[in-house]
Amino acid sequence: MKKRKIGLVGLAVMGKNLALNIESKGYPVVVFNRTGSKTVDFVNAGAKGKNITAAYSYKNLASSLEKPRVIILMIKAGRPVDDAICQIVPLLEKGDLIIDGGNSFFKDTIRRSGELEEKGILYIGAGISGGEEGALRGPAIMPGGQKEAYDLVKDLFYDIAAKAEDGIPCVSYIGPGGAGHFVKMVHNGIEYGDMQLIGECVWTFKNALSLDAKEISDIMLSWNSGNDILRSYLIEITGKSIKEKEKESGMFLVDRIADITGMKGTGTWTIQSSLELLVPIPTIASAIFSREMSRAKELRLAMSEKLKFGKARYGGNRKELIDMAHDALYIAKISSYAQGFALMKVASDKYGFNLDPGKIARGWKAGCIIRAKFLNEIAGLYERNPGPENLIVMPAFRDFINRNLNKLRAFINISHTVGVPVMAMGCSYDYILQMTAPIMISAQVVAQQRDYFGAHGYFKLEKNSSEVLRESDCCRKEYHTDWMADGHPEKEK
Amino acid sequence: MKKRKIGLVGLAVMGKNLALNIESKGYPVVVFNRTGSKTVDFVNAGAKGKNITAAYSYKNLASSLEKPRVIILMIKAGRPVDDAICQIVPLLEKGDLIIDGGNSFFKDTIRRSGELEEKGILYIGAGISGGEEGALRGPAIMPGGQKEAYDLVKDLFYDIAAKAEDGIPCVSYIGPGGAGHFVKMVHNGIEYGDMQLIGECVWTFKNALSLDAKEISDIMLSWNSGNDILRSYLIEITGKSIKEKEKESGMFLVDRIADITGMKGTGTWTIQSSLELLVPIPTIASAIFSREMSRAKELRLAMSEKLKFGKARYGGNRKELIDMAHDALYIAKISSYAQGFALMKVASDKYGFNLDPGKIARGWKAGCIIRAKFLNEIAGLYERNPGPENLIVMPAFRDFINRNLNKLRAFINISHTVGVPVMAMGCSYDYILQMTAPIMISAQVVAQQRDYFGAHGYFKLEKNSSEVLRESDCCRKEYHTDWMADGHPEKEK
Repeated sequence: MKKRKIGLVGLAVMGKNLALNIESKGYPVVVFNRTGSKTVDFVNAGAKGKNITAAYSYKNLASSLEKPRVIILMIKAGRPVDDAICQIVPLLEKGDLIIDGGNSFFKDTIRRSGELEEKGILYIGAGISGGEEGALRGPAIMPGGQKEAYDLVKDLFYDIAAKAEDGIPCVSYIGPGGAGHFVKMVHNGIEYGDMQLIGECVWTFKNALSLDAKEISDIMLSWNSGNDILRSYLIEITGKSIKEKEKESGMFLVDRIADITGMKGTGTWTIQSSLELLVPIPTIASAIFSREMSRAKELRLAMSEKLKFGKARYGGNRKELIDMAHDALYIAKISSYAQGFALMKVASDKYGFNLDPGKIARGWKAGCIIRAKFLNEIAGLYERNPGPENLIVMPAFRDFINRNLNKLRAFINISHTVGVPVMAMGCSYDYILQMTAPIMISAQVVAQQRDYFGAHGYFKLEKNSSEVLRESDCCRKEYHTDWMADGHPEKEK
Repeated sequence: MKKRKIGLVGLAVMGKNLALNIESKGYPVVVFNRTGSKTVDFVNAGAKGKNITAAYSYKNLASSLEKPRVIILMIKAGRPVDDAICQIVPLLEKGDLIIDGGNSFFKDTIRRSGELEEKGILYIGAGISGGEEGALRGPAIMPGGQKEAYDLVKDLFYDIAAKAEDGIPCVSYIGPGGAGHFVKMVHNGIEYGDMQLIGECVWTFKNALSLDAKEISDIMLSWNSGNDILRSYLIEITGKSIKEKEKESGMFLVDRIADITGMKGTGTWTIQSSLELLVPIPTIASAIFSREMSRAKELRLAMSEKLKFGKARYGGNRKELIDMAHDALYIAKISSYAQGFALMKVASDKYGFNLDPGKIARGWKAGCIIRAKFLNEIAGLYERNPGPENLIVMPAFRDFINRNLNKLRAFINISHTVGVPVMAMGCSYDYILQMTAPIMISAQVVAQQRDYFGAHGYFKLEKNSSEVLRESDCCRKEYHTDWMADGHPEKEK
């Protein structure tokens, strides 16, 4: 039998669709699934008549493949990936390549990459975004691993990836080790933030303007049209889905959907990583907290009976609030993306990922959930302004924020006034204020408190300046006041 | 030589002060430090003339102690604790007790407790709060471990602990395994929140009212007087320290202190635990994020040059804003404590800690950093209202919030208007709104988005109700709309 180009393990919906996508681009595929009956079902139904054959053992899979072998794992993250690798590796030869296309935790990918490298096996951890449809029609792909491994399958990635409107495939070499899975994780964190910001916007429209779902859908669809700066997949699907009516009742489906949202691990991992790397991502965190609060449905119901504070009506102009929300949402998005990109920057240094933020933004332009016109702007800004600075002060965004930040403030206050919690909006606003504060007065107070009760010491500012006093070019001078002693003597620590 | 009652390992400042505290209550102590010269120094200086003797090996330490032996570790959390245990255990007999008085991660304490229990060695992980001074004059102690271990040293704990104004020692049996260190961790998370909330308040006073540090000190000291609901150690030390002048310049020291705040692990651990347990603690998280932002001093300075949005002046009445801030801060505190206690509740169930929130609140009334009049209220509320409900809807707090929540909203808006980020205040406000929302409209939108792009399914509400539709008493019915198919058919999942 003729050897196959690509082996694929795992026939859940993402795996099946990716196999069909790969085959449709001219690559003969051999598929394997732990439960063989699923393999039978797939080759006899979805894959019928396609150049997709079945393997019923890893041995069978390995022997069906051209060398160097390329095996894509589309299986559940965690232990199953280690188990699969453990069974496959003895059947491989030096120079063969395993690609993990699942949502693995990037530190697992770093570990696996190192372990396999010792055995001469190439390894790619590829974040794949776009859901079922993306897997089939073209996802955004974020591959991390050895550059030589990437080069081996670059053509495959180009063929199967989504294409941006300029025809460029949404895939590029992200970096070594776990770089691809790290970037995919941050992508998901940003996605959580975007969804929450849109949700808060809808809530305010309902409470402040008593708009129904169709009216809100019209607003969202108008924000998704032409050259609107908010134009994006998530705005589009909000506009399309929110006007849906429930067949039996004729009510808007969104009003019947329970306010309970699940989540998988990646959003939480994003916060955990940010805590390790000391990079603040409050907007993304607030989106996770909101999902947690949504799950506490029974508690919220019980509590809502007990706390009944007055909510005001919005007395202002309808169009004005909608326009204000538009610009507020855009600034909140900039702030949220700035947090995500700042996290990638620090991770890049810490883990040696050598990430290129412009290329990452371009790679997200199609296929993935956060695809948006906005990513064009981000890519362009990074290409024109290399360097570590934060997105919120890059030229186009900075100018927009300088002109319109008061709208985000006003929107937050109106939302609060009509009883709508807008934690993601608020965190986006406060992030901008705090990250551009030459002196954070709150931090001066906290530093003094810590020195008072815990003798933790503090640094000082140059006199009449916001610069920190240094001993030399590199060293901050540290002080401590002896608060318990008479006269509170201060000395260098 | 006469046997000693208590062995203490680790002579950094907390260890030394705790040894002095223990000795002052009539217990003969033997101390050991890895670096013997520190032991020499201590017994010849601070401990001179006291009933404190030196050991220069673990063997020496173990043989100096009465049985059952009691050895307190006051050493750095992490590996050093495991190393010390490893060396001590072979020298012990069944029924001897090791107490870890450091800031260990509660999961390490759970593990160690289990490992030692197999060997017949008792183990207590005790959170000790109060800093150096507390260790010497009486800390709050949060001991977790076997009840029989606690009973063995209950008198010691009572003797050395801080005493509340009613004379009751600030220590009680917290629960098994890592319960004590878990509660201490949450204590520290709450402490971070309190400090940040006060810091935001000070920042707003400066920007909105151009108050100087002495004027702000006067406000803080008035909030710490009489029966004021804010009366607390952190308000007190803010008032006392903020008026301090730098000797050489005559400027207020707080204005010269660099806006850079360090942190140790416990705040971060609190968020990590909350993510694992799916309990939202946004106020505490925002305090951590603020510390992270404070560290990005160079970046903030660079960014502040580029983003120059207009800040308004506060045109209102001075006294009105100060009074508003007082009530706003109180509500924000209630919200933050509610988050911390909610976390303890879930952890109690998950880890079998069997925590008693009323007792925990009483245990924090003296000695520890968050000691406050407020904890009396909390303890009373939990004692009168057992059950899982959240602090914000408990009678006294609920009534205060219902009457004054608008002040927190107004304070946030004024702060934002004068250019002050108030992320902790904002998160406290949004937490109250969101946890008492019978329907979180944002979550309905997010649930629909997730179903659209990822086929994640959704639950539904009972018609014209905020209750979730159930199949039976326990089971939520799940649905999915096929958004790609004509007519968007909806079916049960």
